[in-house]
Amino acid sequence: MDGQDRESGTAFLPKFDANGLLTAVVQHHRTGEILMLAHMNAEALAMTRETGRAHFYSRSRQSQWMKGESSGNVLEVREILVDCDQDALILKAEPAGPACHTGARSCFYRRLTDDGLEPVTGG
Amino acid sequence: MDGQDRESGTAFLPKFDANGLLTAVVQHHRTGEILMLAHMNAEALAMTRETGRAHFYSRSRQSQWMKGESSGNVLEVREILVDCDQDALILKAEPAGPACHTGARSCFYRRLTDDGLEPVTGG
Repeated sequence: MDGQDRESGTAFLPKFDANGLLTAVVQHHRTGEILMLAHMNAEALAMTRETGRAHFYSRSRQSQWMKGESSGNVLEVREILVDCDQDALILKAEPAGPACHTGARSCFYRRLTDDGLEPVTGG
Repeated sequence: MDGQDRESGTAFLPKFDANGLLTAVVQHHRTGEILMLAHMNAEALAMTRETGRAHFYSRSRQSQWMKGESSGNVLEVREILVDCDQDALILKAEPAGPACHTGARSCFYRRLTDDGLEPVTGG
């Protein structure tokens, strides 16, 4: 297939990168807050679709994992959106707890200023 | 520096990947809609901070570009959020027009179903 098919068609033709990965952005399905960003290989995507819970591929650990498998803070996926060139996904999800391993609600808990980083209120 | 400094500190220590890139998610600063996902090298990030308009690095064209440089649909960046391990950014932005090169308001104009892709209403 070519780029045109990927952009305008109704076929799901995920474009995995050289490492076999898609980028996935997790967004709270009700509030719209972006909770985290991670990567998925084909298996993590298949497991996510099959179980309804977000699975990712860890580039550092080189293995698949289910979000919340140790913390219990799973992400129940309500909807998956696909971008124009099909190399990125949005997972609209209901989080069972903090999405970030630091305990923050979202991994994006700091804003960039001219002087460095500062906490985002309510993050 | 180590991971702990990256996570809890106030220093901006961006963790570029093997290709010298960060992942950037563009989110509408008022509606919260995710508009697009792209990559930034150090120069694109510096230009974005300097000009207030989103610049990215195209992996396919291997060059830096300013969003809207040909279409006019620039993204005025109002706030930049940084994630825990500092390899991903959210650009909260005001779009001057459709964010997607297809003319869609957002690149994420389709949802994944068991039968393939279907348009997102209002996308």
